[in-house]
Amino acid sequence: MEFEQITYDVADGVATLTLHRPERLNAFTARMGDELREAFDRTDADDDVRAVVVTGAGRGFCAGADLAGGGGTFAYDPASPADPDAHRDGGGRLTLRIFESAKPVIGAVNGPAVGVGATMTLPMDVRLAADTARFGFVFARRGIVPEAASSWFLPRVVGISRAVEWAVTGRVFDAAEALDGRLVRSVHAADALLPAAYALAAEIAENTAPVSVALARQTMWRMLGADHPMEAHRVDSWAMLSRGRSADAAEGVQAFLDKRPAQFPDRVGEDMPEGYPWWPDRPWSPLQP
Amino acid sequence: MEFEQITYDVADGVATLTLHRPERLNAFTARMGDELREAFDRTDADDDVRAVVVTGAGRGFCAGADLAGGGGTFAYDPASPADPDAHRDGGGRLTLRIFESAKPVIGAVNGPAVGVGATMTLPMDVRLAADTARFGFVFARRGIVPEAASSWFLPRVVGISRAVEWAVTGRVFDAAEALDGRLVRSVHAADALLPAAYALAAEIAENTAPVSVALARQTMWRMLGADHPMEAHRVDSWAMLSRGRSADAAEGVQAFLDKRPAQFPDRVGEDMPEGYPWWPDRPWSPLQP
Amino acid sequence: MEFEQITYDVADGVATLTLHRPERLNAFTARMGDELREAFDRTDADDDVRAVVVTGAGRGFCAGADLAGGGGTFAYDPASPADPDAHRDGGGRLTLRIFESAKPVIGAVNGPAVGVGATMTLPMDVRLAADTARFGFVFARRGIVPEAASSWFLPRVVGISRAVEWAVTGRVFDAAEALDGRLVRSVHAADALLPAAYALAAEIAENTAPVSVALARQTMWRMLGADHPMEAHRVDSWAMLSRGRSADAAEGVQAFLDKRPAQFPDRVGEDMPEGYPWWPDRPWSPLQP
Repeated sequence: MEFEQITYDVADGVATLTLHRPERLNAFTARMGDELREAFDRTDADDDVRAVVVTGAGRGFCAGADLAGGGGTFAYDPASPADPDAHRDGGGRLTLRIFESAKPVIGAVNGPAVGVGATMTLPMDVRLAADTARFGFVFARRGIVPEAASSWFLPRVVGISRAVEWAVTGRVFDAAEALDGRLVRSVHAADALLPAAYALAAEIAENTAPVSVALARQTMWRMLGADHPMEAHRVDSWAMLSRGRSADAAEGVQAFLDKRPAQFPDRVGEDMPEGYPWWPDRPWSPLQP
Repeated sequence: MEFEQITYDVADGVATLTLHRPERLNAFTARMGDELREAFDRTDADDDVRAVVVTGAGRGFCAGADLAGGGGTFAYDPASPADPDAHRDGGGRLTLRIFESAKPVIGAVNGPAVGVGATMTLPMDVRLAADTARFGFVFARRGIVPEAASSWFLPRVVGISRAVEWAVTGRVFDAAEALDGRLVRSVHAADALLPAAYALAAEIAENTAPVSVALARQTMWRMLGADHPMEAHRVDSWAMLSRGRSADAAEGVQAFLDKRPAQFPDRVGEDMPEGYPWWPDRPWSPLQP
Repeated sequence: MEFEQITYDVADGVATLTLHRPERLNAFTARMGDELREAFDRTDADDDVRAVVVTGAGRGFCAGADLAGGGGTFAYDPASPADPDAHRDGGGRLTLRIFESAKPVIGAVNGPAVGVGATMTLPMDVRLAADTARFGFVFARRGIVPEAASSWFLPRVVGISRAVEWAVTGRVFDAAEALDGRLVRSVHAADALLPAAYALAAEIAENTAPVSVALARQTMWRMLGADHPMEAHRVDSWAMLSRGRSADAAEGVQAFLDKRPAQFPDRVGEDMPEGYPWWPDRPWSPLQP
């Protein structure tokens, strides 16, 4: 797939995905969704990518669904052979893909992030905002509903009270309110936003073992919905038993004892533990169920 | 049912439920619980109600269970034919009803909110407090246990650490501690409390589509307990497919493009999507399970 | 079991568990894990213990797994008859035990808490830190993974964004960052740390009914993973029906009406409600499922 509505760049161990329809404030289309899902397939498959930064070209992050279709924009036709996925919310297809990412994802929200432009950031691990950013879960002002599985993600990121307040007012709010509600981790001057995102990505790339990071990220997101810590204990026990015997662990501990930077040999592409991915079932479980 | 222990008023699209036993600091009784559940049935059934404000008459919000019964207050008799619901916690019957509300619920805590007076506010979407408010999850100081399903709600609203601290100390605390713990969204001078609550209710009533708001509120609360975002994606896909083709969506998008206020035609009483309510089962699911 | 790597003291209704390998910054061993689990069995069984404080001897809290084994430290051998639990993560065996505690647990983090030294604190109810404390979920810097069921606990304590950031960077951070992220409740000068922990423990011991506290603590932690508030309503209804008729409730209400301190007669060792513990199944449920 050729990317037309995003750009994809890799440098210094970090992939940058840039929403790129600046003349439309990077408004979201089905095509953009396809490209973004494909981009996350690439970042997962590329062992040179240690973290992903998502940002927008120009003065916007993502203005939401492209409304060029007017009042019929959201009138999907599930009977259309031309659109076999019309029965599935496109925002959700994207956020479920980000949820699965093996690489940490940092949102660098450089301007307005509205509708799907806001909800697509929720399965990202960290959101940084420029002081010019704006956010809006505006669905109730358009006669539709919060999508992109945001009913699952948003209350977990900001708490149920703030989530419902933002969803039922449809208010557009500034970076300060986003920070107060813990939707974003920090607010930056516009020209300091990407440097801050890359500094965080570098902290990951320079210090940690890729296989450990992939397991940690995916386990935490999945356990966010687990009924009991025993489920995490099963996954931990499996992962620790495997990774504890790995070349990465030998190097990580020895480097620490030697007070030198570690050089981790294992790669996500080849060295994930036997039994990975452990979902949806867990025949590997070292514990009785 | 005639209301004797609460008052019920509707104005400007907002229903106000006022706990009304001011001579007892609005202490909770089985009758008050019945009236409140009935009141939420009315607000859900009345399309002129876009939001609900709950407050207390006089200087208290709700002092907790009425202790006029002395040491035997909580000695329910499940064998009594006169009290067929004695085996069910009355606070929980109320909070489960509020959890189901199709209309956003704003708690305006004007004074002491103790015991069930505190726990009844937890399934409300937003809590505002007067600076004279006091809160206490005092059950462990009375020899009973946190009720009203607060063991589910409180950790989700304020986090597990604060929830357990408040529950196992039984401490009564002021509005500042409530704000620091994010139990309340904001603190107001006494005479500014109701205006702030009504301003928030008006923000909902004046800008949003009622069907969208009902779906958003109910989905977020339900997904707070869901195991995986795929469950939200199923509900989203169903709701977006239905609402995307609605008259509300056509109007919402067109009004936005025209830069004019939207006039949403659909009503909760008549226009909820086919298959609503989608719980407890989901034969409607557009996705394979 | 004789305690060799921890000390165990009870005074004024509070048990203090002190990690005690000060020459190794209290580095964690399998033996220390065994001793701590045993200690929580004792605090649960001792009706004179109303709360538990966990701290470290010397200048550290717990520096993490003892790395005296060098690069092979984590290379567990599940085939070894000498180590029948090698297939289970040791940190998780401890945190699952703390999760079950009938007594509130207060972590007093007096110095570095790294690796399992940090994760072991997550199922504690409240964490207080000295201003000299340091925290680090450093697993990804050692080539292993977050353990001790921290993928379940950490996102629930600090939110998913902060949890993933700390896990995938492996950063060591100070008490101020821990406070900002709500990993700790408060930060204290070193010599004010234990007094603050004991003040909180005394607030529990002096004011509350032990059976109520045990039920409240265990219910809240378990409902943190429950799918629906109805599950809490079932447990509440059972617990309220039982405790409402108890001698504790009669005393708690009467003492409140008399404006005198309550003297609760019931004990965790003898007076937990019939059907306790209610997990894993609930034949006692007063409601239909």
